[in-house]
Amino acid sequence: MSFWKRVLVRTVLCSVAFGAIGWVGSLTTAQETPTLASLQEAADAQKLATDKLVVGLDTVWVLVCGMLVFFMNLGFGCVESGFARAKNCVNILSKNFVVFAVTSVFYWLIGWGIMFGGDGGTEHADDYIGRAGLIAVSGEDTSPKMNADYTGAYGAISWAGVPLWAKFFFQLVFAGTAATIVSGAVCERIKYLSFIVFSAFMATVMYPVTGHWVWGGGWLADAGFWDFAGCAVVHSVGGWAAMTGAYILGPRIGKYGPDGRVKAIPGHNMTAAFIGCLVLWLGWFGFNPGSTMGVGDGSLIARIAVNTNAAAAIATLTATATAWLLLGKPDLGMTINGCLAGLVAITAPCAWVTMNESLIIGAVAGSFVVFSVLFFDKIKCDDPVGATSVHLGCGTLGCIAVGLFAEDPKGNLLAPAAGLFHDGGMTQLIAQLKGVAAIGVYTVVVSAICWFLIKFTIGLRVSAEEEIEGLDIGEHGQEAYHGFVMAKSEN
Amino acid sequence: MSFWKRVLVRTVLCSVAFGAIGWVGSLTTAQETPTLASLQEAADAQKLATDKLVVGLDTVWVLVCGMLVFFMNLGFGCVESGFARAKNCVNILSKNFVVFAVTSVFYWLIGWGIMFGGDGGTEHADDYIGRAGLIAVSGEDTSPKMNADYTGAYGAISWAGVPLWAKFFFQLVFAGTAATIVSGAVCERIKYLSFIVFSAFMATVMYPVTGHWVWGGGWLADAGFWDFAGCAVVHSVGGWAAMTGAYILGPRIGKYGPDGRVKAIPGHNMTAAFIGCLVLWLGWFGFNPGSTMGVGDGSLIARIAVNTNAAAAIATLTATATAWLLLGKPDLGMTINGCLAGLVAITAPCAWVTMNESLIIGAVAGSFVVFSVLFFDKIKCDDPVGATSVHLGCGTLGCIAVGLFAEDPKGNLLAPAAGLFHDGGMTQLIAQLKGVAAIGVYTVVVSAICWFLIKFTIGLRVSAEEEIEGLDIGEHGQEAYHGFVMAKSEN
Amino acid sequence: MSFWKRVLVRTVLCSVAFGAIGWVGSLTTAQETPTLASLQEAADAQKLATDKLVVGLDTVWVLVCGMLVFFMNLGFGCVESGFARAKNCVNILSKNFVVFAVTSVFYWLIGWGIMFGGDGGTEHADDYIGRAGLIAVSGEDTSPKMNADYTGAYGAISWAGVPLWAKFFFQLVFAGTAATIVSGAVCERIKYLSFIVFSAFMATVMYPVTGHWVWGGGWLADAGFWDFAGCAVVHSVGGWAAMTGAYILGPRIGKYGPDGRVKAIPGHNMTAAFIGCLVLWLGWFGFNPGSTMGVGDGSLIARIAVNTNAAAAIATLTATATAWLLLGKPDLGMTINGCLAGLVAITAPCAWVTMNESLIIGAVAGSFVVFSVLFFDKIKCDDPVGATSVHLGCGTLGCIAVGLFAEDPKGNLLAPAAGLFHDGGMTQLIAQLKGVAAIGVYTVVVSAICWFLIKFTIGLRVSAEEEIEGLDIGEHGQEAYHGFVMAKSEN
Repeated sequence: MSFWKRVLVRTVLCSVAFGAIGWVGSLTTAQETPTLASLQEAADAQKLATDKLVVGLDTVWVLVCGMLVFFMNLGFGCVESGFARAKNCVNILSKNFVVFAVTSVFYWLIGWGIMFGGDGGTEHADDYIGRAGLIAVSGEDTSPKMNADYTGAYGAISWAGVPLWAKFFFQLVFAGTAATIVSGAVCERIKYLSFIVFSAFMATVMYPVTGHWVWGGGWLADAGFWDFAGCAVVHSVGGWAAMTGAYILGPRIGKYGPDGRVKAIPGHNMTAAFIGCLVLWLGWFGFNPGSTMGVGDGSLIARIAVNTNAAAAIATLTATATAWLLLGKPDLGMTINGCLAGLVAITAPCAWVTMNESLIIGAVAGSFVVFSVLFFDKIKCDDPVGATSVHLGCGTLGCIAVGLFAEDPKGNLLAPAAGLFHDGGMTQLIAQLKGVAAIGVYTVVVSAICWFLIKFTIGLRVSAEEEIEGLDIGEHGQEAYHGFVMAKSEN
Repeated sequence: MSFWKRVLVRTVLCSVAFGAIGWVGSLTTAQETPTLASLQEAADAQKLATDKLVVGLDTVWVLVCGMLVFFMNLGFGCVESGFARAKNCVNILSKNFVVFAVTSVFYWLIGWGIMFGGDGGTEHADDYIGRAGLIAVSGEDTSPKMNADYTGAYGAISWAGVPLWAKFFFQLVFAGTAATIVSGAVCERIKYLSFIVFSAFMATVMYPVTGHWVWGGGWLADAGFWDFAGCAVVHSVGGWAAMTGAYILGPRIGKYGPDGRVKAIPGHNMTAAFIGCLVLWLGWFGFNPGSTMGVGDGSLIARIAVNTNAAAAIATLTATATAWLLLGKPDLGMTINGCLAGLVAITAPCAWVTMNESLIIGAVAGSFVVFSVLFFDKIKCDDPVGATSVHLGCGTLGCIAVGLFAEDPKGNLLAPAAGLFHDGGMTQLIAQLKGVAAIGVYTVVVSAICWFLIKFTIGLRVSAEEEIEGLDIGEHGQEAYHGFVMAKSEN
Repeated sequence: MSFWKRVLVRTVLCSVAFGAIGWVGSLTTAQETPTLASLQEAADAQKLATDKLVVGLDTVWVLVCGMLVFFMNLGFGCVESGFARAKNCVNILSKNFVVFAVTSVFYWLIGWGIMFGGDGGTEHADDYIGRAGLIAVSGEDTSPKMNADYTGAYGAISWAGVPLWAKFFFQLVFAGTAATIVSGAVCERIKYLSFIVFSAFMATVMYPVTGHWVWGGGWLADAGFWDFAGCAVVHSVGGWAAMTGAYILGPRIGKYGPDGRVKAIPGHNMTAAFIGCLVLWLGWFGFNPGSTMGVGDGSLIARIAVNTNAAAAIATLTATATAWLLLGKPDLGMTINGCLAGLVAITAPCAWVTMNESLIIGAVAGSFVVFSVLFFDKIKCDDPVGATSVHLGCGTLGCIAVGLFAEDPKGNLLAPAAGLFHDGGMTQLIAQLKGVAAIGVYTVVVSAICWFLIKFTIGLRVSAEEEIEGLDIGEHGQEAYHGFVMAKSEN
């Protein structure tokens, strides 16, 4: 076929795709006197072109933000492995790599359907779990049509005006985040296969279920619980499952001496941890502003971006200062966890608070996380990277912050009621606490069942010999840093 | 000059730039009775503003995706150096850094002209090589005008509706990718200067020529060969040149024992390899969805994004499982190469297959790459990082997948014919095999000539002493990790 | 509340947010005969929708570019720590992490107001410092209204048509860059707290003041000084403060022998430096093209992107070649600093020069930086990472390049006059030199005062013992690479 023929075809195709373009020709040649009919025609074509542009711009935004959230996998992997010992580094990197692959498959297979299947509607059938278009995102769908115009299986997310696969991509990378959080708390002792299996449970029977309750139009949404970008839905779910896992697994050998003394086990690569945390901070600019799933006039996404940044920045400072005062020196690990604490805490309220309030929320979270890390060590719950403190602790903090700081919605029913500090009384705060508790109870119970199921089938923990030698050799037959001389004792 | 004067000027300038804005004034003040003429004027202005917006949005998309593909340089460098030994790390990083600089200069100087010069048109003059506007992107050009509206030297890419420099930027980062692929297969023994010279050849006499055949309206495009984002055009070209180079260079000292035993030479930094692979995965979200070079209504780019992700995810899992079953342990290197295998394999078909088919393609690629790596070791073609298996092997797989899985184009001539599994018969499959073979023959022959040209002038391989000591000291007078104690033997 | 009720509410809200959508309904149902009035109404609605889209697209562009610039924090941290010794790695990473947090708080608190407060207007009250809406970005603001339509406290930046917080975000990440530059020159000997305090000064009394002179409508703008994306405003300010600090601190122990010999102190992690530099290169695609703060028809941002890339690429090559010829081997450190040199030098002129000129500018910068690094060692100004050469040297080079290469503005008053090589004579060149000198004098004097203020209160330099042992243990009580065996001497 000749090239020009193909060019012609491309023109036709592009006209279909771009709308506006095809219409240009008819208009510019219409140099004859305009009539009411020709003008109406032009207006209709123009409207179509503009609508397409809105969808196109929103899709670009959602995809780019989704890519940033995807990139957080690198961040989580580097922070976790950097905070752990070199002898377990390959294992940790493998876990963090494979967990997103597992989530990608299982969230597609059934997780999405559980979370957004059904319209969440007036009947209470869908209050606890989605069921329409359950398997493999196979339901009917008329996206990017919105709200009342939408018909199909995934009405619960029809408030977003982008194509189905853009919605799916963004929600998938969120699901991946939740599963990754668990990894940090159970590291340096869990079997590789056991963690993989747990990830599959996470992407099917845990994350999507509570996600449905809040974002899928379920009973917690009906009960007035609000969580903008996932303090509870993502971070606390990961945190609860992480804590449960860490508890069931028990502490690493040597972490808590027989005399009750807590032994510090230093991380092996602060460069990796630094890289990881900055990638996470970057990723959060997709996580929070992207949760609008649309651009609108730009003011909301810009506001969320600066709120997110402000909370991270001030939390970095308060955590550093708290650690400095408490421990005598400004530990980089605490600085990094402080930054993450601020990012987690602002995740729920970022769309409904001012910059000043974001600074308050971040400041509290940064200081809080230092105490929390010390507290978990005190109760001998061995969480090598502080995942529980960061994601569960500050996720909960963020949910509460909505109840305290949410601005007066001024009749807007698509936002929480005014918080306690905006003369809203206790209503929103109580709804928030209820949501936190409900999600906590469900996730602790179900994750415990999953952990025990794994424990009594394929086993959960590597042998003591393997743990001492390092999981890299035991699980993967590989060293992370071949050629480097490592200190024999304890590394 | 006073500030307000400047502000005034800026207003004028912005009006030109933004179109819509300037027009706003005239309209809002036109509170007098509307007439047919005033409405027509408004409609014309509105059309111009919308057209500008379409071009603006498409340009943002192309640039952002191009940036992501640029970022893949980091990914390739980290995967390659991580999989190699510490003593050659500086050399590998240098190669990966400089190769994109070399490509940037030479692809601008002549590569672009060879690839997209001419209209690829009805006469067969341009079937094998572009010639219009050959040097330094100096041809006439009326971008972002499209297709029949376009006049200028680069008609072959006039189906994209963005400014010339946006097209160039996106195509340049692709060219850089092809050259980078070679680096991995020839590492740990090639002279720095020799690799630099080969990169210049790659960006001029290899990549752009076969690129012209497929994407520049050349004879393979006429023959019905389809390659959406470059399985053959980018990855197999890099892979063929890599394999040829690895073969001509010969294996690393000590890799194959005299008894025929293959010695595993472990990589020195799995953290770097992990970082690299996740950056590549991220970059692929620019590589594949960006190859639309436009946003349209968003549905195509969203679909390509999830297809790309699905293939990568499932390939990660099948490669891990295959390595686990075959080698006894889940090697992280195989997991990473599996992920890359899935990404490469979905590159050609991603726009024309379903999610389910993407999962099949990825699953096959992930398993395939493990066998391929073992096979190349068996035939003693020493490719330290598996570049040939990943890019040539899975690039070919992806081209074949188009012949098997391509959906019925339903009259759309801008897509391959229906594949074998969609009742399309063997037509498309045969066209794909023809394209793969043609590109392979050309690249093997020309790259061999280039390799030998270098070998008999400046030489190709470092001395045995330098190879044993490491190229970092020999070529660069530098260590990668000064201050760390390294194991003396073999590292 | 029932789900459908919420959906309804969301529809209303989205209509507000998206504009176009709400209007669609009214139009499509208007199947009755069109009238002049109904068409005018439709045209008005359409205009509103398009204006919203322009603001939305520009906001997405500004935010995404801002995120890329934010990501440069990772780049600076990795280049600096990679070029320094392992024993100071935690300290360097901590500095680079905390500096952006400090900037985020202080630039918000007062920096923004100093830089953009006031309209820069006709009265000379605002020539030297902004004063309106000074504290905490609290001024009135009607963004995204532009220019004459804008009323509010920050008129100096009303040429950008995006919401206030988008402007703030983009300017904030720029401020962070300036502060980070200092870090490299003073590393391996400065006290952690002292650097933190200096960062706060940087974000308040230095960067925003000279920034106001140029970008806030101050006296240098009036004097015809032009700096597109910050060669002087960002890089030279950072560079001057860095040089002053390095000089006041004095060289590292052992750097200059008593016999006057310069001792090379090799960096500890070239992988980190490689990662860092590529992240910086990526970040520059936000830095330069994003400085348009709008998309327009896409041609300007695309042109700036390729100019930026061309300068970086050629500078990488000329720096590598210069080092190779001068020092005998192609040092990776010089390659990396060469790349950064090209990026810095093109920052001021990137919007007003051709691709060919960008290549010339980059080529000169790449070669220049090698000589500059050697020169600073000769005068015994110990700058461990070459920050002064890169940012001050090439920043100045870039400002001069505007005076030499700026294209004929052809009546456009929003651009520099034609440069010397475009028959513009010396006018623009002299204005550029004046600007460079003024910013230099101010920054050297004020930064010296700040450095001495810190020196005579909390002290500037760690003890000799701590410096020899490494700042990681002394300042942070932590090792960067626990478990690795390090060479005892000098590492």
